[in-house]
Amino acid sequence: MSTGEVTLVGGGPGDWDLLTIRGLRALEAADVILTDHLGPAAQLDEFLDVSGKELIDVSKLPYGKQVAQERINELLVEHALAGRNVVRLKGGDPYVFGRGFEEVSACATAGVPCSVVPGVTSAISVPAAAGIPVTQRGMTHAFTVVSGHLPPSHPSSLVDWPALARVGGTIVVIMGVRNAGAITQALVAADLAPDTPAAVIQEGETAAQRAFYCTVGELADVMDANHVAAPAVYVIGEVAGLARAR
Amino acid sequence: MSTGEVTLVGGGPGDWDLLTIRGLRALEAADVILTDHLGPAAQLDEFLDVSGKELIDVSKLPYGKQVAQERINELLVEHALAGRNVVRLKGGDPYVFGRGFEEVSACATAGVPCSVVPGVTSAISVPAAAGIPVTQRGMTHAFTVVSGHLPPSHPSSLVDWPALARVGGTIVVIMGVRNAGAITQALVAADLAPDTPAAVIQEGETAAQRAFYCTVGELADVMDANHVAAPAVYVIGEVAGLARAR
Repeated sequence: MSTGEVTLVGGGPGDWDLLTIRGLRALEAADVILTDHLGPAAQLDEFLDVSGKELIDVSKLPYGKQVAQERINELLVEHALAGRNVVRLKGGDPYVFGRGFEEVSACATAGVPCSVVPGVTSAISVPAAAGIPVTQRGMTHAFTVVSGHLPPSHPSSLVDWPALARVGGTIVVIMGVRNAGAITQALVAADLAPDTPAAVIQEGETAAQRAFYCTVGELADVMDANHVAAPAVYVIGEVAGLARAR
Repeated sequence: MSTGEVTLVGGGPGDWDLLTIRGLRALEAADVILTDHLGPAAQLDEFLDVSGKELIDVSKLPYGKQVAQERINELLVEHALAGRNVVRLKGGDPYVFGRGFEEVSACATAGVPCSVVPGVTSAISVPAAAGIPVTQRGMTHAFTVVSGHLPPSHPSSLVDWPALARVGGTIVVIMGVRNAGAITQALVAADLAPDTPAAVIQEGETAAQRAFYCTVGELADVMDANHVAAPAVYVIGEVAGLARAR
């Protein structure tokens, strides 16, 4: 029996029609599909004939987060070694904070052929869905996508937030709802003007999308007052002020 | 006669199958398609029945760059006001250095309905095609996408390159072939370690893709020695060292 292969597919931010054609074809050719709760996973049977395919929802694995990832890696390898064509469907793009490279590495170590189909990242498309371009000529020549899962003072933080405040580009924070207060304070303390435009978008590119526009100085309070919950993206920079100017 | 509408479609980095399904449907429904030389434009008749559609290659407009953009804006508005369904097909994502917001704004000013279909950005997918994830757990919590079209010392530069050198995340430079020497020197002068891994990818996600792996200190010389030409993306950061470690 020959070894199957693994394809990581970036599913985009939400609605299934933001999947790429290459990604859809990989799903159509799959024997086994590993999904989680992100991206278009919940709509799988709306756009795909899933009969004859094994679907595994890895968000329901009965383990903690780290063990679950190790188990996902094992499942990818096990099914491929059993000769099956495996797709790992992920939200957004597989390489944007999706632990995609860990899955690729596990396959490489096991000698399983693995490829990556890039996807539409939430970090760019969710601001766009709220009318915000991450770049604009004459206004910003850079944008930084940063994980807000650790507060700036955390010993494991790998981000120099004061330096980021001075880069001069758009800042897009994902996974940062809980730490919005600490993050915006760190940026303003490093001389980012408190009246810099900001916006937060919850459940972007879905029917439940909500967006709020304010300044970086107000952002944490606006998020609190409106009970903004994950998944949410916030954007800090002059471009956040363009949405209402259209 | 009723007004048509304009849809900006992100065409992805190259091969047409990295177009989204929403983008393909917009192209199928279009009466007029404005393309340039980026993304899947050259393959249009391979995946689309173009009979009955008017195709306009705006990269051939006989004007300078700024006038050409103004003329593109006018064409979008004129065709929509004439009742046609207009698609503006762009490379990558419309809002990543693509002047997409200028086109959206022109439509808004003229009262023409306009929507944006996000795309797979070259800034993430081209490194991925060379085996490089822009993020990796425990290694980097941020990545910055920056235009290298101006050298760091240019009076119109909007980027604080010394600050960027200290952020601690991956740096992805697009449109930076000509200024690679000045950019890497500015980063190293701001204490980015000269042995930080780097990679440059020319014509990523196409059959002509070439990639070279080195350090940030060597990058400009490697690009010179190999005659790297636009379109090219370079990646600076620990993640650039992962590609060969797979």
